[in-house]
Amino acid sequence: MTMEHTSMGEVVVIGLGPGNSEWITPEASEELARATDVVGYSTYVKRVPEIPGQRRHLSDNKVEAVRAAMALDMARRGSRVAVVSSGDPGVFAMAAAVLETADDDQWRDVPVRIVPGMTAAQAVASRVGAPLGHDFGMVSLSDRLKPWDVVVKRVRALAGADMAFAVYNPASKSRRWQVGALRDIVLEFQKPDTPVIVARAVGSADESVTVTTLAELDPDVVDMRTMLIVGASTTHVYDGPDGRRVFTARHYEAPATDD
Amino acid sequence: MTMEHTSMGEVVVIGLGPGNSEWITPEASEELARATDVVGYSTYVKRVPEIPGQRRHLSDNKVEAVRAAMALDMARRGSRVAVVSSGDPGVFAMAAAVLETADDDQWRDVPVRIVPGMTAAQAVASRVGAPLGHDFGMVSLSDRLKPWDVVVKRVRALAGADMAFAVYNPASKSRRWQVGALRDIVLEFQKPDTPVIVARAVGSADESVTVTTLAELDPDVVDMRTMLIVGASTTHVYDGPDGRRVFTARHYEAPATDD
Repeated sequence: MTMEHTSMGEVVVIGLGPGNSEWITPEASEELARATDVVGYSTYVKRVPEIPGQRRHLSDNKVEAVRAAMALDMARRGSRVAVVSSGDPGVFAMAAAVLETADDDQWRDVPVRIVPGMTAAQAVASRVGAPLGHDFGMVSLSDRLKPWDVVVKRVRALAGADMAFAVYNPASKSRRWQVGALRDIVLEFQKPDTPVIVARAVGSADESVTVTTLAELDPDVVDMRTMLIVGASTTHVYDGPDGRRVFTARHYEAPATDD
Repeated sequence: MTMEHTSMGEVVVIGLGPGNSEWITPEASEELARATDVVGYSTYVKRVPEIPGQRRHLSDNKVEAVRAAMALDMARRGSRVAVVSSGDPGVFAMAAAVLETADDDQWRDVPVRIVPGMTAAQAVASRVGAPLGHDFGMVSLSDRLKPWDVVVKRVRALAGADMAFAVYNPASKSRRWQVGALRDIVLEFQKPDTPVIVARAVGSADESVTVTTLAELDPDVVDMRTMLIVGASTTHVYDGPDGRRVFTARHYEAPATDD
């Protein structure tokens, strides 16, 4: 009954994992190989192995909703469209953007599947140990999509409940004061020697990971490629043979002796 | 200068991802192949392909610290020991247990590396869409290692800050009232129709995933293999062609129209 005699395709939102190919799952690799079209921010599409006949649609990093609508439109016309994200597409990435766009009369009948991936926070945590080893949060420090007072409320809730948390989008070229503000909020609840991990470009050739403290956290070193993990009162640091190891104890109050 | 003429080995804590082999990373597979010894809860060790000459040490699920000490001791005597966890070892799993044990005079010189994996929460979220698509938390509902009042404080903090969150260890055969208590706490802050995902054994042949609401959440269906994801005010549900799709909007207050 449609004017175009094509069957419905689908949109598959795929997580490539952070950084490099050692963290992509077999499922994600298989789904990428089956796609007729690959859509995404150019940096991520370039991580996908090229396949003859597969079309690639590169875009900049700012137009998630436009990219989502393009993918849904191609799927409606019969394509099997892979929308690619770094890390897990379900964490501050394209899955919510595609579903937000799809939840509309013109798109709601287009199938959307999510293929999960390893999150950047898990990769960062692993480099130093297990700083997210017990209850934790993940917050974006960007006030591009939500008011700053919502950011403040959430950081206060996490620090006030003595939870460790990962900080996505801590800064950019133009957003420079938020990391200092974050530090001051957490210092209302936690001690100055609370561990903080400053991780840049984990999984890439430029990777650097530093263990510091709330008191010594320097907002000037934080840029768009940086993620922070802020510890809790139960987050411990020791010097191992390969550098500092950080973990948040599974026990509350009396860590390290459960046998 | 030591009495035993062996070089130091290492402990590598490896995440297998949740459920099945389609979610294990290439890095984890390579590390498993290089290990001389594999240590872990028997259910997880059985997921590791057997290699001739590689020793396997299966244990029950209750003695993390004993398992950690055994792994550290074998590494000190020269073994390359893989300690395996489901999901990500850094999230409510063996990485913190090994580091807690290693942070002691007798073990601190043994190298411990963490190989991250996909978390169970990310896999669960992907089955319905992107319910953790914006700021979120992860909490364990078990009061085996922390007092219940700490659990309450953290759930109140997350719900009070209008964050979605994943719930690990919601119940067991003997812990039966905690899910009902969780629901009542969240209802102090969120509406009865707030989406809740009830996921059991994701990635296994027994997988079941249901989208319900806070008001209709039935604690009786929750067991040890279940994970919950509780939404926020910005968590939306729509009926897609393959079932219900759930996402937490990236925008605060005005979701679904950003272009």
